[in-house]
Amino acid sequence: MTKLTEAMVMAEFNRPLELREFPLPTPCEGEVLVKITAAGVCGSDVHMWRGNDPRTPLPVILGHEGVGRVAALGGQSKKLSVYGREVKEGDLVLWHRGISCGRCYFCLIKKEPALCPNRLVYGINRGCLESPHLKGCYSRHILLDETTVLYHVDDDVDPAAVVSATCSGSTVAHAFDLVSPQMGDTVLIQGPGPLGLFAVAFARSLGAGKIVVTGGTDARLELCKEFGADVLLNRKKLGREERADAIMELTDGRGVDYAVEAAGTPDAVEEGISLVRRGGAYLSVGFGEPRGSVSLDCFRDIVLKNLHLQGVWVSDARHTHMALQLIMNRVDLFSKMVSHRLSLRDATRGLELMEQKDAVKIVLMA
Amino acid sequence: MTKLTEAMVMAEFNRPLELREFPLPTPCEGEVLVKITAAGVCGSDVHMWRGNDPRTPLPVILGHEGVGRVAALGGQSKKLSVYGREVKEGDLVLWHRGISCGRCYFCLIKKEPALCPNRLVYGINRGCLESPHLKGCYSRHILLDETTVLYHVDDDVDPAAVVSATCSGSTVAHAFDLVSPQMGDTVLIQGPGPLGLFAVAFARSLGAGKIVVTGGTDARLELCKEFGADVLLNRKKLGREERADAIMELTDGRGVDYAVEAAGTPDAVEEGISLVRRGGAYLSVGFGEPRGSVSLDCFRDIVLKNLHLQGVWVSDARHTHMALQLIMNRVDLFSKMVSHRLSLRDATRGLELMEQKDAVKIVLMA
Amino acid sequence: MTKLTEAMVMAEFNRPLELREFPLPTPCEGEVLVKITAAGVCGSDVHMWRGNDPRTPLPVILGHEGVGRVAALGGQSKKLSVYGREVKEGDLVLWHRGISCGRCYFCLIKKEPALCPNRLVYGINRGCLESPHLKGCYSRHILLDETTVLYHVDDDVDPAAVVSATCSGSTVAHAFDLVSPQMGDTVLIQGPGPLGLFAVAFARSLGAGKIVVTGGTDARLELCKEFGADVLLNRKKLGREERADAIMELTDGRGVDYAVEAAGTPDAVEEGISLVRRGGAYLSVGFGEPRGSVSLDCFRDIVLKNLHLQGVWVSDARHTHMALQLIMNRVDLFSKMVSHRLSLRDATRGLELMEQKDAVKIVLMA
Amino acid sequence: MTKLTEAMVMAEFNRPLELREFPLPTPCEGEVLVKITAAGVCGSDVHMWRGNDPRTPLPVILGHEGVGRVAALGGQSKKLSVYGREVKEGDLVLWHRGISCGRCYFCLIKKEPALCPNRLVYGINRGCLESPHLKGCYSRHILLDETTVLYHVDDDVDPAAVVSATCSGSTVAHAFDLVSPQMGDTVLIQGPGPLGLFAVAFARSLGAGKIVVTGGTDARLELCKEFGADVLLNRKKLGREERADAIMELTDGRGVDYAVEAAGTPDAVEEGISLVRRGGAYLSVGFGEPRGSVSLDCFRDIVLKNLHLQGVWVSDARHTHMALQLIMNRVDLFSKMVSHRLSLRDATRGLELMEQKDAVKIVLMA
Repeated sequence: MTKLTEAMVMAEFNRPLELREFPLPTPCEGEVLVKITAAGVCGSDVHMWRGNDPRTPLPVILGHEGVGRVAALGGQSKKLSVYGREVKEGDLVLWHRGISCGRCYFCLIKKEPALCPNRLVYGINRGCLESPHLKGCYSRHILLDETTVLYHVDDDVDPAAVVSATCSGSTVAHAFDLVSPQMGDTVLIQGPGPLGLFAVAFARSLGAGKIVVTGGTDARLELCKEFGADVLLNRKKLGREERADAIMELTDGRGVDYAVEAAGTPDAVEEGISLVRRGGAYLSVGFGEPRGSVSLDCFRDIVLKNLHLQGVWVSDARHTHMALQLIMNRVDLFSKMVSHRLSLRDATRGLELMEQKDAVKIVLMA
Repeated sequence: MTKLTEAMVMAEFNRPLELREFPLPTPCEGEVLVKITAAGVCGSDVHMWRGNDPRTPLPVILGHEGVGRVAALGGQSKKLSVYGREVKEGDLVLWHRGISCGRCYFCLIKKEPALCPNRLVYGINRGCLESPHLKGCYSRHILLDETTVLYHVDDDVDPAAVVSATCSGSTVAHAFDLVSPQMGDTVLIQGPGPLGLFAVAFARSLGAGKIVVTGGTDARLELCKEFGADVLLNRKKLGREERADAIMELTDGRGVDYAVEAAGTPDAVEEGISLVRRGGAYLSVGFGEPRGSVSLDCFRDIVLKNLHLQGVWVSDARHTHMALQLIMNRVDLFSKMVSHRLSLRDATRGLELMEQKDAVKIVLMA
Repeated sequence: MTKLTEAMVMAEFNRPLELREFPLPTPCEGEVLVKITAAGVCGSDVHMWRGNDPRTPLPVILGHEGVGRVAALGGQSKKLSVYGREVKEGDLVLWHRGISCGRCYFCLIKKEPALCPNRLVYGINRGCLESPHLKGCYSRHILLDETTVLYHVDDDVDPAAVVSATCSGSTVAHAFDLVSPQMGDTVLIQGPGPLGLFAVAFARSLGAGKIVVTGGTDARLELCKEFGADVLLNRKKLGREERADAIMELTDGRGVDYAVEAAGTPDAVEEGISLVRRGGAYLSVGFGEPRGSVSLDCFRDIVLKNLHLQGVWVSDARHTHMALQLIMNRVDLFSKMVSHRLSLRDATRGLELMEQKDAVKIVLMA
Repeated sequence: MTKLTEAMVMAEFNRPLELREFPLPTPCEGEVLVKITAAGVCGSDVHMWRGNDPRTPLPVILGHEGVGRVAALGGQSKKLSVYGREVKEGDLVLWHRGISCGRCYFCLIKKEPALCPNRLVYGINRGCLESPHLKGCYSRHILLDETTVLYHVDDDVDPAAVVSATCSGSTVAHAFDLVSPQMGDTVLIQGPGPLGLFAVAFARSLGAGKIVVTGGTDARLELCKEFGADVLLNRKKLGREERADAIMELTDGRGVDYAVEAAGTPDAVEEGISLVRRGGAYLSVGFGEPRGSVSLDCFRDIVLKNLHLQGVWVSDARHTHMALQLIMNRVDLFSKMVSHRLSLRDATRGLELMEQKDAVKIVLMA
């Protein structure tokens, strides 16, 4: 008799996810069946749920952030993690959420597989209508394609702490891989959510001097402090001019050397660029969907400023490695980032909490 | 009896420059008195003449681009060019137009002396009211400060071809130093003036594949072809959509890998960014004064595009070296860039011609 | 009835290659059958023939450099070149000689697929004992694996000029990709063979100032001049001290900024490092097999010199793109690099000529 | 009456330093008279004392590492630190030990002032025979030249912790500035002295994953652990093969991604290169004087390995900033690096202790 597994399925936008049963597949050559231990609820899951992401197929099992244990391996060939270690049944593993084609101009000539036009992403552009169905993380099991990149995770690690490596952590890693702060640089992070927390942690681990964070919630800002921030500016308590004054005083009037936008609003972009020193770098990672425009004076904001403005789109396997390494050095800290641990069946509540912005990071635990 | 020299002085904005006599100074320790052979008329001279550059002191001898022969050396110490060769009376030399302080955060920590807040520039922020007066190139002589950077120029080189190394060439060099195209990259240059011509030449000398130039004048576009451009798009003959189609066809639908804005209009910036592929680089060098703003959709134009937008402000001594090396490899070509050779006394006419955009490059010859 | 094709097979070391017939295979899904137009005879083919490369299986069809026309495509899926253009029967194509695994630490984390431990190379570590046999270029046909990277080549291009893009050109591209000269740098190339010629061409196309070449044959040195070299130093006519004097004079006593070893002897490495300025870069590409050691004084040659010594091992698909773009800009020049065009059946003679070092580049033409 | 100050003078090699009095100078325009608070005893001071550094003038006040309070400022102009803050009497300041010319090819074109051929260094190539004498740090006062780069230090900081920023810290910063490890890289540091401790701290602050240190003294190795090392290999307890095994196991058989030699022996270089993975980086900083050669197999150790070997010579003002920022983030830790605090008059004993290698860092305290 076929064994069954279950998953939370999004059949329609804006409606509660439905628990459905699926046959547990037998992996083909190179495929890996994973029993999910922890699955992250990402802000972009909410966008999809609200019908705002045109890539979304229906029905779909949401969830592109996962960690779990290998339940079965397909075929006879030895399966290796990206580190070259053999992957065996029972191993705790993380996987890269995207699958790039490995053959196009972006993958091979520019070595930017994040920009591959053929990129597939678990839980995003892979529906569950057709067999083998299990291509999202809001599920007991997921069936990983042969070319999915695997990372070994130590057995004793909190899986909820690690799960963010696959999306927000990886995307922020991409930012710091594109442009790195220099030793001692003053760094501004806008937005104290998961992206912002990763940005603080990366900045701290990559040589930043003083780190300033702007945000609207004291609790989140305090968490940033634990992650390594030095100066917290609550924009609900300090006006824009006061924020600017604080930063200019800290930088002898120059502005910060390096800034990361993790707030997702055009206002933040405009303010942030005005706070970067001449010749500094401004990285924007917080926009997962259209949210308006920023107006830049070509002379003052770009040329005279000698500005480096860098947009950052998703990530590749290298970046997930970077994020995982970052977390492994400070697992306890990243466990604190997880504000809610819910059961799989509470996935809809997870989406609601995420939408209300009360949570920092929500993880569905097996 | 004191010997005299003469210079064209801007005493008031918008009025003809005046020929004035000045005493020929004896250089102090480390200073160099140069008899000017060729002086470039730069677009920013016109802005200054029109009173649009707030840095302008009055009266002033305009002219920040010059080449000439050493007339006298101050003091007993050996004077060396940046290449370590002794500078002697009669040597043909070029000099870097800016003098950075060499002691600030920008000069020493970030190694970006172009951004030094204490930067002095011959012919721009140095008036001629006080002795020794001669701090601009619209003059028979210029007295160079001790810390001015000197470059030897071969004796048999057309000085008019070389003079642009000190401003437009150096600024474009700065752009290519900040972000370099990669071997085989498709490159778009917007604007076929001196900045654009240098951009074509640098792109060709730094590994570009196909080079596309957009502009409004066939004659200038044809000159770009001689400089190494492959595809010329006259924006007075081809609409924006046709230009986009041509570029998309050339790049298998991706857009160009690398683009340089040398047009100085917000429209060009907006169009240019739309023509850059995901992950590509867009460099803006064409704004010497405020000319309006560009509106960028944070999601589509920046994040999803993974855009690298780079503003470029002036240049430092390294960049003048780069521009000089570029020219020395192709002197004949750069001689063609000089559309008008005038006498010093015709400086006002030079400004007028420059303003009418009939000229490509105007040089005042001794 | 099964159609047949033929190839030159190396059944034993040091013996003439044998003409053998093989069944013409029908490509499976994603595979590409190519009718070879031109195949390069590489110096490393000679090492393999002499039994000096431990990777060599027997019997084997040698030849890792090839260009040809698509004879048949396997399966129904659209096949794309790396540029995203559809590959069709009759198209002239080049392919990357190596197939990396795309899943390991080197491929994904470090993005250096040239170092992939699972790398397969046509004509090198793929024997012809088993079906489908055709995995080398000394053949009428080659059957390319599904994951082989394809590049479209314009129909009117001399295939012999292009074939070197896949090995020597690609390897030199890897060198220039790892460390690039800066605009105006004085560059030294040691050795005027195919690697050296590519190094001259890359240096010229990537901003070098003066290019110096050392070698032992006037004819080859003269060809370097056509490729863009400025100074030729024949080491059979000039002693080591004279060569050093010439280079020090050219560089105001500093030494060259950038040097590429393409000579394959420890003496060249030792001399070359002594001719690099403090802070300069020395790249070694010329060793395809063990040929002895170089002794470096840790203080004088490395630390005090602030030396960047860079070894360069083979190449990846990005580098073949770079080499192909380089050649496409100057096809006529690269045609001149081909000193001998032989028929496939003369492959053994090609190996002998290569060994005698009389040839620059030998190509087997269909 | 002229005020006097005192300094420890090296009048002859290998003899005790002599306490001598000097007139306290009045600083000229731009000069700064500093009352020294802490002066480091560097390993290279011992070399000079033993007569092994050909640059040494006699008599000389040794000491190129210093921190102190501003006693007097010359002239009327405002004096600024490199951060743009005004320097006032009583301020605690650090200064960059070297003075580069700011005009040569290395300073301006290559932006590597550490390689400036005209570089002066306090306490090294500046004798004390002539007025104003005070150009070394083994002294109550030092008179800094106008072009010396100053850094403000917070008042409450342990000056002994900071003093190493100016030499060993700055040199290691130069190494990490030339080649940076990537996030998660396994790093090997050879030698647990001051250079090695800085290397551990920089690696930890710049994204290293696991850090391995090899050395011969358990106490020093334990200190490395406090600085952030993960694995300690005592080469007096573990043979070379055991060390290799430990590193290969840690890196899944690849070898480390990045290694820094801070041991100063050719054996270390040879061993270290063998432990770097293909494509990895090996930086050598530990040779302040000739100590023999390393033999590298051109094929196996350089080309096949795709090795990046980087020598590192001294440092510039940017690097001292980097080291100072590193220390300021972890002052308590760097205080622990100071194994001996002696009085100025005990300078000779400081040299002896340094020579016996019992000390980690010796600082002469005012």
